[in-house]
Amino acid sequence: MATTAEAEAMRRAVALAARGLGHTSPNPVVGCVILDADGRVAGEGWHQRAGGPHAEVHALRDAGERARGGTAVVTLEPCNHTGRTGPCAQALLEAGIARVVYAVADPTDGAAGGAATLAAAGTAVESGLLAEEATAVNEAWLTSVRHGRPFVLWKYAATLDGRSAAADGTSRWITSAASRADVHRLRAEADAVVIGSGTLRADDPHLAARGPEGVRQPLRVVLDSDATIAPGARVLDGTAPTLIAVAEDVAAPRLPGADTVRLPRAAGGRGLHIPAVLDELLSRGVRSVLLEGGPTLAGAFLAARAVDKVVGYLAPVLLGAGAPALADAGITTITQALRLTVTDVLRLGPDLRVTAAPEPSAAPAVPNPTVSEES
Amino acid sequence: MATTAEAEAMRRAVALAARGLGHTSPNPVVGCVILDADGRVAGEGWHQRAGGPHAEVHALRDAGERARGGTAVVTLEPCNHTGRTGPCAQALLEAGIARVVYAVADPTDGAAGGAATLAAAGTAVESGLLAEEATAVNEAWLTSVRHGRPFVLWKYAATLDGRSAAADGTSRWITSAASRADVHRLRAEADAVVIGSGTLRADDPHLAARGPEGVRQPLRVVLDSDATIAPGARVLDGTAPTLIAVAEDVAAPRLPGADTVRLPRAAGGRGLHIPAVLDELLSRGVRSVLLEGGPTLAGAFLAARAVDKVVGYLAPVLLGAGAPALADAGITTITQALRLTVTDVLRLGPDLRVTAAPEPSAAPAVPNPTVSEES
Ligand SMILES: NC(=O)c1ccc[n+]([C@@H]2O[C@H](COP(=O)([O-])OP(=O)(O)OC[C@H]3O[C@@H](n4cnc5c(N)ncnc54)[C@H](OP(=O)(O)O)[C@@H]3O)[C@@H](O)[C@H]2O)c1
Ligand SMILES: NC(=O)c1ccc[n+]([C@@H]2O[C@H](COP(=O)([O-])OP(=O)(O)OC[C@H]3O[C@@H](n4cnc5c(N)ncnc54)[C@H](OP(=O)(O)O)[C@@H]3O)[C@@H](O)[C@H]2O)c1
Repeated sequence: MATTAEAEAMRRAVALAARGLGHTSPNPVVGCVILDADGRVAGEGWHQRAGGPHAEVHALRDAGERARGGTAVVTLEPCNHTGRTGPCAQALLEAGIARVVYAVADPTDGAAGGAATLAAAGTAVESGLLAEEATAVNEAWLTSVRHGRPFVLWKYAATLDGRSAAADGTSRWITSAASRADVHRLRAEADAVVIGSGTLRADDPHLAARGPEGVRQPLRVVLDSDATIAPGARVLDGTAPTLIAVAEDVAAPRLPGADTVRLPRAAGGRGLHIPAVLDELLSRGVRSVLLEGGPTLAGAFLAARAVDKVVGYLAPVLLGAGAPALADAGITTITQALRLTVTDVLRLGPDLRVTAAPEPSAAPAVPNPTVSEES
Repeated sequence: MATTAEAEAMRRAVALAARGLGHTSPNPVVGCVILDADGRVAGEGWHQRAGGPHAEVHALRDAGERARGGTAVVTLEPCNHTGRTGPCAQALLEAGIARVVYAVADPTDGAAGGAATLAAAGTAVESGLLAEEATAVNEAWLTSVRHGRPFVLWKYAATLDGRSAAADGTSRWITSAASRADVHRLRAEADAVVIGSGTLRADDPHLAARGPEGVRQPLRVVLDSDATIAPGARVLDGTAPTLIAVAEDVAAPRLPGADTVRLPRAAGGRGLHIPAVLDELLSRGVRSVLLEGGPTLAGAFLAARAVDKVVGYLAPVLLGAGAPALADAGITTITQALRLTVTDVLRLGPDLRVTAAPEPSAAPAVPNPTVSEES
């Protein structure tokens, strides 16, 4: 049984882990708190960026000699592999940690096993403390490991009657400044922001994250099958990396300020093959995607069961006409409806932010040839 | 200054008033608590049905001799007129009440002035205690007095993407049993439930309120310009009163189980003239309307600025196709959007219930010739 001090330390470790969101891919976010032999906080740390030291290493350094005989409280099972940094299980043993409490097991093939190594060396090991909170903070990474593709969050803004624009196409602004600022936070936490050529043409969006100095920029991705992008498009301004995906039967355009990639078209459908898009992004280290496309692309991702989470910004506005927030998702009758579970509702200025996840049965992984679903 | 005991009594009086919802039109709902000279609860009552004794009379009877020298705490200014029952101001004086605390002034011409009469007779009078709560419970009645037309609540059920049916027209069930039960509560609280001929044909709804034994049935109203209703329609089953409104250029159908009325058509628009419909309902004692029509009628009521409150049951479901929850409301560009203020958000089973009111600027009263807006 974990002690009260350990539970408190885990809560702190989850908060520390969250600081890494947007900075650690392809790694998870991890937070760690070291308690000394008397159960007092001796050090803390978090995984700050891919390639940098793991959370445990930061926390052990912070604790120094006080770690000896103490307890490491960590949000994810300590790793066992020697990657760009040494294995954490080894570092914990060397620091003389007597007990390790972690929240969530590491599901990756290469890294798992830290708990076994520690136990074999005589360290007391306990798992599952605040597992729900620790799973939530690492949701994108855990989902991407489980499904073998990036975690996809579809964000949309709409009126109470489900419109994303008025009849004449105007939509500035349906949602409030508070909602729009929240979207920038989502961008900063995502590895990539994806739109389709329809949104590109209609809005010429910039897609960078506004925010505090030093905010990390996501990869801006445009799915533009026929390479229609104009050289002056704002996503080509170089302030953040950009990837233009075109169809493999189209000559890749030469665009200063962007990478291009040629991908297969959707078999029998419109646009690019979504599993191929996600596979390409995964290979570029993208673990989490913010889908900011229009109703067409959102419909295609939903039809492909490639949406893990939905965040809707609902403005208390009625229009009665205009483009719907969501177009064809291959659903023709009510029994095929995509059912979600609401996980959070927040009032954001005048608006509502509704967070929901597709019900498990409705979200099998997009088949992906390189990573098995069981991994 | 009101005492703590008086504030507590007012809270109770508001709860008592709410018991009358759906039973008192064309009168307001009113609750009353009598405190004895020592500030202890001596009696309570509420206006139970139109034609029955007022709340004050019930409460005075309940208190008996303990009312003498006591305080009457009442949600609405005591009336001064002699209607079907005597004036309450007089009854309070005769019972020897020394102090009257009320929440909201009576805005009607005939009834107002009770406070002045009481004060002139030497009773201490205080107003405004818990005015917000007391206004909310009497919202329908106060709005109908202010605007000279029935209060209109538009209820709709939709998916998160604003659809009220799938592409093939199926819609059973988008929202949960909990949401549907809540709609029956709204029906029982309304004086009339209104639909258009489109919903009549599509759903052949029954429109009666299900609920506990003795639940009051609203007047079922169908706006059916061309008298297309079939004699076997479920609204004609006689379990609740029904009114079929047809255009004045159409012969009124003879329908057992329903009243009919002929009304002017909307000038230049579709269907019946909405102010004439509301005027007709007001003349029948209807103070509150639950608008349960489809997207067409809702759009017309919104365009006529004849909606005072919106209750949306949002199911965590995505469809991507199908009929929208709201059709043409005369809005073509974003600056004309109907902006609301969210007043309540409730999770109802898996669904969200969002309650909102049009922003004041957006809701001028429908012009009504018989009652001035200032009344
Ligand atoms: N309310 C909101 O949250 C929100 C967000 C974004 C955009 N919008 C609005 O949405 C409108 C644009 O709508 P839209 O639906 O045209 O934009 P979109 O969904 O971003 O782009 C659609 C285009 O993406 C391309 N595409 C590539 N792969 C695809 C695939 N697998 N499935 C489907 N399409 C694929 C297709 O064109 P090609 O294959 O020919 O390249 C398709 O026409 C704009 O008015 C914009 O303002 C609203
Ligand atoms: N999701 C929900 O909450 C909900 C609620 C109700 C219905 N529905 C669905 O809505 C669909 C029916 O849609 P609908 O829009 O046709 O139904 P509706 O709005 O109930 O009826 C529309 C009809 O009402 C008549 N009408 C009378 N006065 C009118 C006026 N001033 N303005 C506009 N129309 C007036 C018009 O026909 P005439 O003038 O020719 O008589 C008009 O075609 C059904 O599928 C039903 O299931 C959904």
